[in-house]
Amino acid sequence: MSLQRRRRLETINLLEELGRRLVNYINNGEFPYVDIPSRSVSNIRYDPNERGYVIGDKRKVRSASHMMHLKKFTQFIWIAYFAKELLQRGRTSTLRDVYYSSQAYGIDFEEQQESDELIMDLEAYIGRPREDMNIFPAERAAIFGDLTIEYTVPGYEGRRVNLLSHPDGLMIGHSLKTSEFVECNAERVFVIEKDAIFNRFIEERVYEKYKAILISTSGQAPRAARYLIRRLNKEMGLPVYIFTDGDVWGLHIAGVIIYGSANSAHVRELHTPDAKWIGVWASDIEKYKLPTDPFTERDLKRLDELLKDPRYNEDPWRRELLKFKKLRRKSELEAFSRYGLTYIVDKYLRDKMKEVE
Amino acid sequence: MSLQRRRRLETINLLEELGRRLVNYINNGEFPYVDIPSRSVSNIRYDPNERGYVIGDKRKVRSASHMMHLKKFTQFIWIAYFAKELLQRGRTSTLRDVYYSSQAYGIDFEEQQESDELIMDLEAYIGRPREDMNIFPAERAAIFGDLTIEYTVPGYEGRRVNLLSHPDGLMIGHSLKTSEFVECNAERVFVIEKDAIFNRFIEERVYEKYKAILISTSGQAPRAARYLIRRLNKEMGLPVYIFTDGDVWGLHIAGVIIYGSANSAHVRELHTPDAKWIGVWASDIEKYKLPTDPFTERDLKRLDELLKDPRYNEDPWRRELLKFKKLRRKSELEAFSRYGLTYIVDKYLRDKMKEVE
Repeated sequence: MSLQRRRRLETINLLEELGRRLVNYINNGEFPYVDIPSRSVSNIRYDPNERGYVIGDKRKVRSASHMMHLKKFTQFIWIAYFAKELLQRGRTSTLRDVYYSSQAYGIDFEEQQESDELIMDLEAYIGRPREDMNIFPAERAAIFGDLTIEYTVPGYEGRRVNLLSHPDGLMIGHSLKTSEFVECNAERVFVIEKDAIFNRFIEERVYEKYKAILISTSGQAPRAARYLIRRLNKEMGLPVYIFTDGDVWGLHIAGVIIYGSANSAHVRELHTPDAKWIGVWASDIEKYKLPTDPFTERDLKRLDELLKDPRYNEDPWRRELLKFKKLRRKSELEAFSRYGLTYIVDKYLRDKMKEVE
Repeated sequence: MSLQRRRRLETINLLEELGRRLVNYINNGEFPYVDIPSRSVSNIRYDPNERGYVIGDKRKVRSASHMMHLKKFTQFIWIAYFAKELLQRGRTSTLRDVYYSSQAYGIDFEEQQESDELIMDLEAYIGRPREDMNIFPAERAAIFGDLTIEYTVPGYEGRRVNLLSHPDGLMIGHSLKTSEFVECNAERVFVIEKDAIFNRFIEERVYEKYKAILISTSGQAPRAARYLIRRLNKEMGLPVYIFTDGDVWGLHIAGVIIYGSANSAHVRELHTPDAKWIGVWASDIEKYKLPTDPFTERDLKRLDELLKDPRYNEDPWRRELLKFKKLRRKSELEAFSRYGLTYIVDKYLRDKMKEVE
């Protein structure tokens, strides 16, 4: 059985276990209840050994025996039921869509925020991200490189595609994310924040010159992209290098890919601790004399927040954050074009790869 | 020669003509100048015959003989030179990237707004969109359906792909947009504002049931998607039906696909006058008893603007705008899920197609 199919069956099984547990309570004449890991900030901490955010031991109880719990308890069970339906019927949904779907079952949510919260509770309860329950965000990251995948989604089982075959790159959607890796002639992964630079890397044949798989995150990396990056690193043993804009937002985009986000501390498998952020650093701005813009108030505020973040205690994070604080200026990946279109590949990328490898 | 290759050569030729014109002035001992169609609001009007925005006859002159013109004149010529370089070297760029690239040539723009404006001036001058000069936006619309295309971009000439072959859909990037249509077994095009519903349509095999090509615009349609929709309509003779959220923003997304935008009045070939907006209408909200949200101040303001827009003088636009004004409520494509996941296909889509065909 393929890894992905097994994963799907495991998720269905986790959801069914929840159901069996509740039925047992009822059969024993007890009120059914669930204890859900608390996702409150006080229960989230950065774990240096795990090199990512983890959730603590605190749990919250939702019981059918309490009038005050009854609504949330029922809604929670419905979410689990609906997720199982999605998986068994091979359908997909989104957070927004689950909210509306509840009305087909007479389950009342006052607003979407309520159903979103319970979906995250369910993630925490079964320890699997909502994508494993076929609840997806709009995903528009892209991938290009010499990797052959085999689809595992219904109707496409066994179909293979080499990721060099589409010059625009392929979207990292649900089907691609859950595909099997069949053959890989790449030796590393370049993750790029900007589509423009992703396209430039394709044009300049970076995938050949560096035997690299290219991934564009289009800003903050969607969860599907983060999941795929992790798989490329763990399953294929490929080193991962991240290129972002030279500002605090870019730094944090890299940080979330590497360490995960507090928001998804309750689900593992979305971070890649061995990935490396290799630019654009504040020190690159000086070294390459890049065109810059001054920091805004918002940039400065964010900078101070990140300086307090335990993920960024070590270098290069801390060194570069302090450098940004000194410079008070930011730059972008496109800024290398001031030296011509191919400079970012011929000079900057070459320098960086010499440094790290 | 393929249509797309001819198009590329035509654009290069238009840019070279501009150069030859300037050289002629100089050879004749005259100051070189250009006269650029004015893109100011006063020179843009809605043309009921063209069924789209068109640009008038006013032109602005930039001459090397005026000190005040000299900078803009030089910058304009550089943009044209750079565009020709991109085309001849098979490289691509973005608005942001052109701005930075100018610094590699000692051309000074104070800010990106300046180079953006001149790129649009150049579009107006040669009558071609900037994508024809390899200057692209980040594009993330997607397509799925029984259409076989053949790539025309360098390195991929002659490679064919059927757009059913990737279950996540294919991104509508530069390569796909400029591909040749080789074989089509579809009979219509469904354009969908929301990725979630695009995915639902794939899952529910709408492409089979309705022999439809599915296009997701992810909100306001990127120019590449608008260009491709037009080609499917004009070259393949496929009728186009547009599904948006049931609000004034959705209505306007459909309007831009059909009539074009004032912003791109100076370039043709981005609108599809025969496409039809078929939902979600304000009247659908009542008819299908959809869950709604109240209009915000911003919605109301936009509604009043659209009521004054000449594109929306006729039905269904006017009727639905007035209906929205009465209802003061809005809904979304996902709202149909209140009747179950497949209702939007089994009931709503079926109803709509009966009405229009």
